[in-house]
Amino acid sequence: MRFFSDNAASVHPNLLESLTAANGQDTAYDGDHLSASLNTAFSDLFETEVEALWVATGTAANSLALAAMCQPHQGVICHKEAHIEQDEAGAPGFFTGGAKLMLLGGEGAKLSPESVDAHCAAIRDDVHQVQPAAVSITNASEYGLVYRPDEVAGLAEICRARGLGLHMDGARFANAVASLGCSPADLTWKAGVDALSFGFVKNGGMSAEALIFFDKALAADTRYRRKRAGHLQSKGRFLAAQILAMLQDDLWLDNARAANAGAQIIADAAKERLLYPVEANEVFIKLAADEAAHLRGLGFDFYDWGKGQARLVTSWNQSADDIRPLAEAIDAL
Amino acid sequence: MRFFSDNAASVHPNLLESLTAANGQDTAYDGDHLSASLNTAFSDLFETEVEALWVATGTAANSLALAAMCQPHQGVICHKEAHIEQDEAGAPGFFTGGAKLMLLGGEGAKLSPESVDAHCAAIRDDVHQVQPAAVSITNASEYGLVYRPDEVAGLAEICRARGLGLHMDGARFANAVASLGCSPADLTWKAGVDALSFGFVKNGGMSAEALIFFDKALAADTRYRRKRAGHLQSKGRFLAAQILAMLQDDLWLDNARAANAGAQIIADAAKERLLYPVEANEVFIKLAADEAAHLRGLGFDFYDWGKGQARLVTSWNQSADDIRPLAEAIDAL
Amino acid sequence: MRFFSDNAASVHPNLLESLTAANGQDTAYDGDHLSASLNTAFSDLFETEVEALWVATGTAANSLALAAMCQPHQGVICHKEAHIEQDEAGAPGFFTGGAKLMLLGGEGAKLSPESVDAHCAAIRDDVHQVQPAAVSITNASEYGLVYRPDEVAGLAEICRARGLGLHMDGARFANAVASLGCSPADLTWKAGVDALSFGFVKNGGMSAEALIFFDKALAADTRYRRKRAGHLQSKGRFLAAQILAMLQDDLWLDNARAANAGAQIIADAAKERLLYPVEANEVFIKLAADEAAHLRGLGFDFYDWGKGQARLVTSWNQSADDIRPLAEAIDAL
Amino acid sequence: MRFFSDNAASVHPNLLESLTAANGQDTAYDGDHLSASLNTAFSDLFETEVEALWVATGTAANSLALAAMCQPHQGVICHKEAHIEQDEAGAPGFFTGGAKLMLLGGEGAKLSPESVDAHCAAIRDDVHQVQPAAVSITNASEYGLVYRPDEVAGLAEICRARGLGLHMDGARFANAVASLGCSPADLTWKAGVDALSFGFVKNGGMSAEALIFFDKALAADTRYRRKRAGHLQSKGRFLAAQILAMLQDDLWLDNARAANAGAQIIADAAKERLLYPVEANEVFIKLAADEAAHLRGLGFDFYDWGKGQARLVTSWNQSADDIRPLAEAIDAL
Repeated sequence: MRFFSDNAASVHPNLLESLTAANGQDTAYDGDHLSASLNTAFSDLFETEVEALWVATGTAANSLALAAMCQPHQGVICHKEAHIEQDEAGAPGFFTGGAKLMLLGGEGAKLSPESVDAHCAAIRDDVHQVQPAAVSITNASEYGLVYRPDEVAGLAEICRARGLGLHMDGARFANAVASLGCSPADLTWKAGVDALSFGFVKNGGMSAEALIFFDKALAADTRYRRKRAGHLQSKGRFLAAQILAMLQDDLWLDNARAANAGAQIIADAAKERLLYPVEANEVFIKLAADEAAHLRGLGFDFYDWGKGQARLVTSWNQSADDIRPLAEAIDAL
Repeated sequence: MRFFSDNAASVHPNLLESLTAANGQDTAYDGDHLSASLNTAFSDLFETEVEALWVATGTAANSLALAAMCQPHQGVICHKEAHIEQDEAGAPGFFTGGAKLMLLGGEGAKLSPESVDAHCAAIRDDVHQVQPAAVSITNASEYGLVYRPDEVAGLAEICRARGLGLHMDGARFANAVASLGCSPADLTWKAGVDALSFGFVKNGGMSAEALIFFDKALAADTRYRRKRAGHLQSKGRFLAAQILAMLQDDLWLDNARAANAGAQIIADAAKERLLYPVEANEVFIKLAADEAAHLRGLGFDFYDWGKGQARLVTSWNQSADDIRPLAEAIDAL
Repeated sequence: MRFFSDNAASVHPNLLESLTAANGQDTAYDGDHLSASLNTAFSDLFETEVEALWVATGTAANSLALAAMCQPHQGVICHKEAHIEQDEAGAPGFFTGGAKLMLLGGEGAKLSPESVDAHCAAIRDDVHQVQPAAVSITNASEYGLVYRPDEVAGLAEICRARGLGLHMDGARFANAVASLGCSPADLTWKAGVDALSFGFVKNGGMSAEALIFFDKALAADTRYRRKRAGHLQSKGRFLAAQILAMLQDDLWLDNARAANAGAQIIADAAKERLLYPVEANEVFIKLAADEAAHLRGLGFDFYDWGKGQARLVTSWNQSADDIRPLAEAIDAL
Repeated sequence: MRFFSDNAASVHPNLLESLTAANGQDTAYDGDHLSASLNTAFSDLFETEVEALWVATGTAANSLALAAMCQPHQGVICHKEAHIEQDEAGAPGFFTGGAKLMLLGGEGAKLSPESVDAHCAAIRDDVHQVQPAAVSITNASEYGLVYRPDEVAGLAEICRARGLGLHMDGARFANAVASLGCSPADLTWKAGVDALSFGFVKNGGMSAEALIFFDKALAADTRYRRKRAGHLQSKGRFLAAQILAMLQDDLWLDNARAANAGAQIIADAAKERLLYPVEANEVFIKLAADEAAHLRGLGFDFYDWGKGQARLVTSWNQSADDIRPLAEAIDAL
């Protein structure tokens, strides 16, 4: 009965099986046949030619993407509550060689084209101020909201006009796609995204995420940077295997749909308490301290999210039956 | 019949089983009960209190250790054929913020106390020259030679006298311990080592190495640096599980003994060709181009190692029966 | 009739004379007798033993100080309008190896102990969030306000309680001291400052600032970092000479008093327009676009400072007679 | 009677006068009319359109040039006795964000096309090894030898073939041009140089060097990097003034000719002792310990350069009469 975070949930059994299946001898690093098939697998999924690199964490994927777009003396525009700003220990500063995160506000941790444009316009075009080189958005956002394809395209338009790259932190990309019912292509390159951190670990994965470059020019250096950051694992076939198992028969979408459905059950029960619309697998609610204590007394775990507020995250492996007790307990408050 | 590298060999089945066993819900990152037990497990193994951090690669372990010892404006003394210099894409420069590797010679990729001392003595004590802060040695070395405890102690004496930290790259630490028959303690902290990259991946592991700090003051910052480098995996329990499976009943030693024994079979057959004594699981031999071609024609794979030379690496999963055909083929040349 | 910035004003003739006087042969870098006398000169001025390093710019002084206090994975708390954030092209990120500036608000670009404490309290004490290591304040502030000794002490108390270093960007330190009539000691180490960027260039200097360490442990590494940043000039005696000429007979204070006095003349004339109290040599006023155009038409130059606002900066070399025309023109608007 | 180094010699009086002349009010940073004229002045000198940036030190010039050519994960090929490797405290590692210096041998601290090509050929074209991005040569070299235009062109040919930038550390560029009697153009862009650190400080300057980009695409980012490194001085007109005074009537050439002539006087007297041909203003000689002591007893100062060897450097301000006593003393040994 844990609703702390989807990043602590169990791993889907298909992935564990894929590890056993991958356990022959093969070439080291990403020279194996599984790693070699990733470009094709993701190019099929995204309906365009992409470069795909496995890495172990979303933090690595995000920072490698940003480093590919942003020189050390430049900056990355993101929301002030973005994961890259709040929860990655300064990783973007490390991987970029000291670039600056430029923090904007926006409801539900979402950026708007207007705020990005206004921020850029306010930067003096001289050498004294750090100039932005990229925008990073999180989809689904840190508050469980999704950017729709047209919203992404709106941001991309500003990026193109100002010469900025566009990165999508897709730690919960699957949840966003599942929620929107659009194609992965619609939500990314067709809308103007240059690089995507495609998360699997929060969605039933174990230790493999994919970094997808739609702008292939960005990928070449990144292969060096990945090694240089200690992220080129010797037995890369075990990361590739996990990812391929996720893509197989759209397991990634099934898992995300399950998690999203769970969140809707809670949302329905907590209608009056919702801080944000529930569009993915995160539910933010008003919850008084004594109410929180009561729920915890019943065995439900979750994060407090500031005073009188709580965050509830559902996972791929929680069925409606698993979640209903929480929904009922909230309803009964 | 591949003798390219132990880092491509299969994973020991115990480790795969440990992943399945670890696949419940638990706290994320290194808050799970398996990760929490690593300090105790390694403290038992090393007979002293240590701090142990899992990471996915030896490159990450090495560079995090060096960053803990060396400020950006300082240097790390190592052999010019050290893995950190030759094969890690400049990772030490990245993790340390630009520190310099100071390259020494030495037979079989081993450093001597004399050469370290002479190198330090030749550096002017002024702000124009980079001052060393640490020494890094590889045990077993890149040429399959081992440092004995007294050799390590000899280097550590110089380090103490000159205020340098001592790091051991133990990608093949297991092979060294198995070869020497000493205790892990004897070869490390008792001899003056401050931090050890304890490798498992080349020894039947999948995706987990251990970074061991004997100087615990070095560990605290490293936990931040690990996260900042994208190396704090969400589901860390799967790395801890692998490592604990390796420690269980000394599997790490059994695997290393098997690999070392395989190398001895080849060494015996190639006595006249040996470029170095065979002390671990690597065999370097003189091998003319036509001889190499002949062996490859028989189905044996390996690296050329400069003109007229070859490197043969044995792995934990190669039995005497697996290796004898190669030994006989070399003998028959 | 330029009121753009004090950093463009002419150089005091004493400094030019000091260059000629220093133009013998001497030891290079900071081995000359002038550079060697800086520690003593500043120790006398500050009534305690300090380490003093010359550098060419305030940006270098600030960033070297911060790098001495803050590891790459840590952060520096400062005002969101601090010069280090707004006008130094990301230099702190460069010198620290990627550390994060943590931006707070506060009237007149001044930090309060309460806001610093609250910011620290809100940072989770885990490896996912960047932990602060230092606080940087600007005195006089970017809006021409001064921190009084007790205000500095209030901030220092929080710093001590939370283990943070305290840096003072004193690009206009002279103006602050002149304004307060306190001793340099009162405003710095006696109030808890660990390092001071002591500015001279905006105060009639040419190309030399002083970086003063009250915590001498911070100075040693900085000497290496200064060289590594290309800031150890071969003919350092010409920087030391400028600084010593400034200290001679309190020229630095005389210059600052003159600039401050000029600002008061404008302030008196613009009482109704003042955006902030005028405590140093900067005057921020409400000024409509047509009024600004009118003043410029009369030959006065200055910065617009957002819509309907202007910044007027006075310099050491502007006499009351130089400034009165501007004051009268404002008065006549 | 000091022959330690030309970087400690006095400043030419024309430069001091230029400072006084520049001491009006002007725009700050490099917005003044003197700084603005540098591009034209150097474009005239080099007979092609160049971008010229002033900086205070050769270390800054060198490192900014390398950072413009080399990403953090790449490398710079240079001689193992190059100033950037031996005497700049790791500045290239700092400015490039951790790039690697790749050290080659070569007589008299000069690189040959063959050795550069062989070094590149030996690097495996994979992500495990740092790939070179630039070559840096010093002209005149650290042993006072000059690269002739055809030698530079030979290196540039390899650079072009392998996609490497070519940087010239010209701390003693004036001495090289004076020695060769060629045009500045012949020795640089016509021979394939992309960026030149044009040194003035060792040649009678005070605190200004010029960084010249022949490949103008490299200059744009460097203007940001210069600021970010704290090297954009507020009163930049005083650096520009020095440089323009040096260019005026070829003062830089006159000074270099004087220093070179001085070195020839010593070389003639020490013919039997010379370790290298004397092609600029440095003389390296065999000198036994008692001989060195004898010369020092006579009042001559210089560096020992390893056992039984000494370095004697002549300066712009030493006349034949100043130098003859040393020449005679050596002759009399």
